[in-house]
Amino acid sequence: MSDTSRQELEQLIDERVAAVHRRDSATLLRQHDDKVLTYPLLPPTVSRGREAIAASLDQWFGGYVDGPGYEVHDLVVEADEDLGYCAFLYHVSGTLTSGDVVDMWVRSTVVFRRQDDGWRLVHAHESVPFDPATGRALTSEPPPEG
Amino acid sequence: MSDTSRQELEQLIDERVAAVHRRDSATLLRQHDDKVLTYPLLPPTVSRGREAIAASLDQWFGGYVDGPGYEVHDLVVEADEDLGYCAFLYHVSGTLTSGDVVDMWVRSTVVFRRQDDGWRLVHAHESVPFDPATGRALTSEPPPEG
Repeated sequence: MSDTSRQELEQLIDERVAAVHRRDSATLLRQHDDKVLTYPLLPPTVSRGREAIAASLDQWFGGYVDGPGYEVHDLVVEADEDLGYCAFLYHVSGTLTSGDVVDMWVRSTVVFRRQDDGWRLVHAHESVPFDPATGRALTSEPPPEG
Repeated sequence: MSDTSRQELEQLIDERVAAVHRRDSATLLRQHDDKVLTYPLLPPTVSRGREAIAASLDQWFGGYVDGPGYEVHDLVVEADEDLGYCAFLYHVSGTLTSGDVVDMWVRSTVVFRRQDDGWRLVHAHESVPFDPATGRALTSEPPPEG
């Protein structure tokens, strides 16, 4: 395990947060590997490749008249020389073009692999749990402890 | 990156599938680190530690009169010397004690870290996407391609 790698991944998460605040899709896309495998919060079940990320970022940013706010909480990072992961919760807030207010906690796991030209995000998994009794996604769970 | 590590993690996934079929909680628990960080399919949003895994396995196995069937599809494994991840879809099937039939596709990301006595699962993230229009979890998406 490598402290240097861990610090580099922490910087990538900082960069990610700052880029979302600027609605800077180019920086976010540059973090991704061409063939990134994604399990997104919203359908489809599985998505592959950087083009799919680009489309979903356009849709995400375009959906908000105010926001999206994006705060990372409870970040865990572990990394070896050439592979590492980050697990965290993020809080999304803002107002959609529909007028609906968003106030949502999302679980996120991202895996980075070191390439010749630096770290690239090769896998991302984002979700909320669901209530089996109602079948409803739990999008407004209170912030967990810690 | 290490082919040996990758093969070892593939074996752990095989062991996991076989253990679910036998309802063998002891083998499943032994794969987990004491402090495993879990983002489960069902609430809570975040769970920590092996005891929480034990409780959720009891609840899972106890909920089925037939099953759970557990098939792994589209497995991706990448690993460095001491850290690796597996991303896959699993199909859960069977009949609950309520009589309800389960036929569900779940996305799963699991991270293993090599300890002195072998690989341990340090992070797991399981989910289905949800439909933002209805707020419903999409538990019966058709099997994705590939």
